[in-house]
Amino acid sequence: MTTTEKSIDQFIESNRQSIVKDYYKFLSFASVSSEPEAKKEVLACADWLSSYIKNLGFEVELWSTSSHPVIFASNLKAGPTKPTLLIYNHYDVQPVDPLEEWKSPPFQPTEINGTVYARGAQDNKGQCIYVLQALKYLIQHELLDVNVKLCIEGEEECGSRGLSEILQNREKQKKLKADYAAIVDMGIPNATTPAITLGIRGIVTMDLEVIGSHTDMHSGCNGGIVMNPIHALVKLLASLRDENGKVTVPGFYDDVAALTKEERQKINFDFDESTYFEETGAKSTGGEKNFSPNERAWIRPTLEVNGINGGYSGAGFKTVIPAKAIAKISCRLVANQEPKKIGELVKKYLEKNAPEGVEVKVHLHPGGGPPVKTASQSKGIEAFMKAFEEIYHKPCQFTFAGGSIPIVAELAKATSAEPILVGLALSSDLIHAPNEHFSLDRIEKGIKLISRAILLLDSSK
Amino acid sequence: MTTTEKSIDQFIESNRQSIVKDYYKFLSFASVSSEPEAKKEVLACADWLSSYIKNLGFEVELWSTSSHPVIFASNLKAGPTKPTLLIYNHYDVQPVDPLEEWKSPPFQPTEINGTVYARGAQDNKGQCIYVLQALKYLIQHELLDVNVKLCIEGEEECGSRGLSEILQNREKQKKLKADYAAIVDMGIPNATTPAITLGIRGIVTMDLEVIGSHTDMHSGCNGGIVMNPIHALVKLLASLRDENGKVTVPGFYDDVAALTKEERQKINFDFDESTYFEETGAKSTGGEKNFSPNERAWIRPTLEVNGINGGYSGAGFKTVIPAKAIAKISCRLVANQEPKKIGELVKKYLEKNAPEGVEVKVHLHPGGGPPVKTASQSKGIEAFMKAFEEIYHKPCQFTFAGGSIPIVAELAKATSAEPILVGLALSSDLIHAPNEHFSLDRIEKGIKLISRAILLLDSSK
Repeated sequence: MTTTEKSIDQFIESNRQSIVKDYYKFLSFASVSSEPEAKKEVLACADWLSSYIKNLGFEVELWSTSSHPVIFASNLKAGPTKPTLLIYNHYDVQPVDPLEEWKSPPFQPTEINGTVYARGAQDNKGQCIYVLQALKYLIQHELLDVNVKLCIEGEEECGSRGLSEILQNREKQKKLKADYAAIVDMGIPNATTPAITLGIRGIVTMDLEVIGSHTDMHSGCNGGIVMNPIHALVKLLASLRDENGKVTVPGFYDDVAALTKEERQKINFDFDESTYFEETGAKSTGGEKNFSPNERAWIRPTLEVNGINGGYSGAGFKTVIPAKAIAKISCRLVANQEPKKIGELVKKYLEKNAPEGVEVKVHLHPGGGPPVKTASQSKGIEAFMKAFEEIYHKPCQFTFAGGSIPIVAELAKATSAEPILVGLALSSDLIHAPNEHFSLDRIEKGIKLISRAILLLDSSK
Repeated sequence: MTTTEKSIDQFIESNRQSIVKDYYKFLSFASVSSEPEAKKEVLACADWLSSYIKNLGFEVELWSTSSHPVIFASNLKAGPTKPTLLIYNHYDVQPVDPLEEWKSPPFQPTEINGTVYARGAQDNKGQCIYVLQALKYLIQHELLDVNVKLCIEGEEECGSRGLSEILQNREKQKKLKADYAAIVDMGIPNATTPAITLGIRGIVTMDLEVIGSHTDMHSGCNGGIVMNPIHALVKLLASLRDENGKVTVPGFYDDVAALTKEERQKINFDFDESTYFEETGAKSTGGEKNFSPNERAWIRPTLEVNGINGGYSGAGFKTVIPAKAIAKISCRLVANQEPKKIGELVKKYLEKNAPEGVEVKVHLHPGGGPPVKTASQSKGIEAFMKAFEEIYHKPCQFTFAGGSIPIVAELAKATSAEPILVGLALSSDLIHAPNEHFSLDRIEKGIKLISRAILLLDSSK
């Protein structure tokens, strides 16, 4: 056991209670970025977090934006000859509905056998808190010999509008400048296997509205006469994929860049069908038939309907033909695809294929983001890889992620930093769903991972 | 002008204020039969209506059932040598949502230029109140020389469970026995054209549930791996009709009885495309391509999706793959089709065609009803036809209705009465929708129609 290993273990052991207390405090803020009525909680969370980081030994600036503030913090004591690491996290969370499916209140963290249940327990407050604890350890023990900058935004779950504004600002670009940008919002394939993510998918989202009439109509008197907007909507949506699960929108796959031979060799595409089924109750029967499950989730674009609504769907029955029906659609994009271009292709397809007798309106949302593919070899990657291997006593794998962090491409460009996609998420953490959770064991591993990687990063320059 | 014509005009003139007052009082009860929380209002409405009818000169019984009570009333002073007319109405109404689309509160009747806006303004409180006023007139002027029975139920909008129980009861069957049963819940083609309805469609309804996983999932991490239940649902629903608008469920049309040549000649199938579009904003592009709009609405069965829901459809966006998605389906049926049989056929189709990777559950609702086709010539029909022609100074047309009153077939059978389907509804009344309305002019015409038809029915025996 090295001195550092021993002292990080000691740090965790003697700070166990305060680590959990700080984590729970962070989780208690209902910082749901997409809900205007949660604004107060979002701001309270940002304030608390700013003070917390200041107390760790950082210079902190709370950058206001046209929406939620961005926390910028820096500790540049290592000096200009040392590498600079920017760490990205977010303090906002997803909405909690359906609330009735939560087994404990989403903003009252509840521990059961070492697992903490709360909205944000993992995404991203859990992953943020271990970063901060690792920095606390390094600073307290005077081991921080790398310049560290933190960028913690409050809108990752709803388009990163504020941070996107910040990244347009020359002065702030300069402040954020770094050699590496660790995006600590990623995951590992399972609890015992370390992995670094080499790419994330991009995203573009849109609202689809199918309008049939001025007002809801009686399905007895009018059924058979009019085109029911729900019928038009399901027809249109069903037409979006063919019998092989391929998206039928012309040009949808045109720009998709295939992996190089080297990349393909490096990536572990294994998919554990039975574990997946156990965790989710779902089989891997979606998407394109001629690709494996993880190929479909990582290196192939998708089109998903994330919401559909029309007519009466409460208790009992209402014999209505609704005036309109709506759907919410997102496309996940892979290397070389442009969100705006794909959004326009889908919009055009939906408008062009509007069934006779209804009006189709498509509203593309701003705030999508391009896909990211990182270097598969670099000093930064090396530091995290080694840290992972020391902690897990296992070779570090390389993987991709199906999810999107729309701002990453923009952040990397504006800061001239090399992105490193890391984190300790598991697919079973139920992020964005009821009963999201994270384990205290991974909080510990995260503290070790970040502190060790920073130490290795210094020695690697 | 005959004496009767003069005196009915005088009655309306001198009672104008009280007629509107009584109508508004009736409309003020939020008697939404399908909502358990409205039970108190349903009962208050039944109580008020019972007293009201008693005051007109009827013996009244409030028949309790396992759900909402049925009002039975009789005035048999005409004696056994005279014909007996049973009149059917209902005092319950549809739910009001979406409430925000109402221009005035649904249970505060609001008159604008002779049009009264309220839930139930037409369906069926408006049509019930003119029946009662007509009876008031006949009784006050000692002109009622026909035995009249009233059967006013409180669950027409949600399956008529209570009345259906009543109709199983021998003693009550006896009490309800009549020569004719006027179902005053029907309509006319336009404001100036009288018509009697020769048939209504039957109905069967069901809930469809498509289950993909235990819990909602992240559409980034899982998109492309799993079968999104919304995709499965739209695929399944879209497959229910072919490119000609025909329902694809095997056997769906097998039992449909075509009209006889005589019936076809009697019926006016004219459809005014431009008026329909003006009223509804909808074109007649739904249903089977090789039938005209009114054929599709009157003499052809349909399958309509009345509600669809899955995932997140609120403001903003949530990148979720929902655990399940649901739809509510109704089929309207025509002569010779059996609700239970058709329901089973649709259920079987949906279950058999479940897309791979999801579970499909179909729940058939009880309380559907068979279609009704009445005699096209009889003394009862004749009386209403003549009354119509006297009031509208125009030949009475014969028509069908696309809607359903599930209990009618059962009522006719249990009471041995010949059903007569009449009423003054217009397709533009927005029943079952926000801003339902009825005109005071039609309240007047209704009083005249019912009183005159009863007088003619007497002289026709």
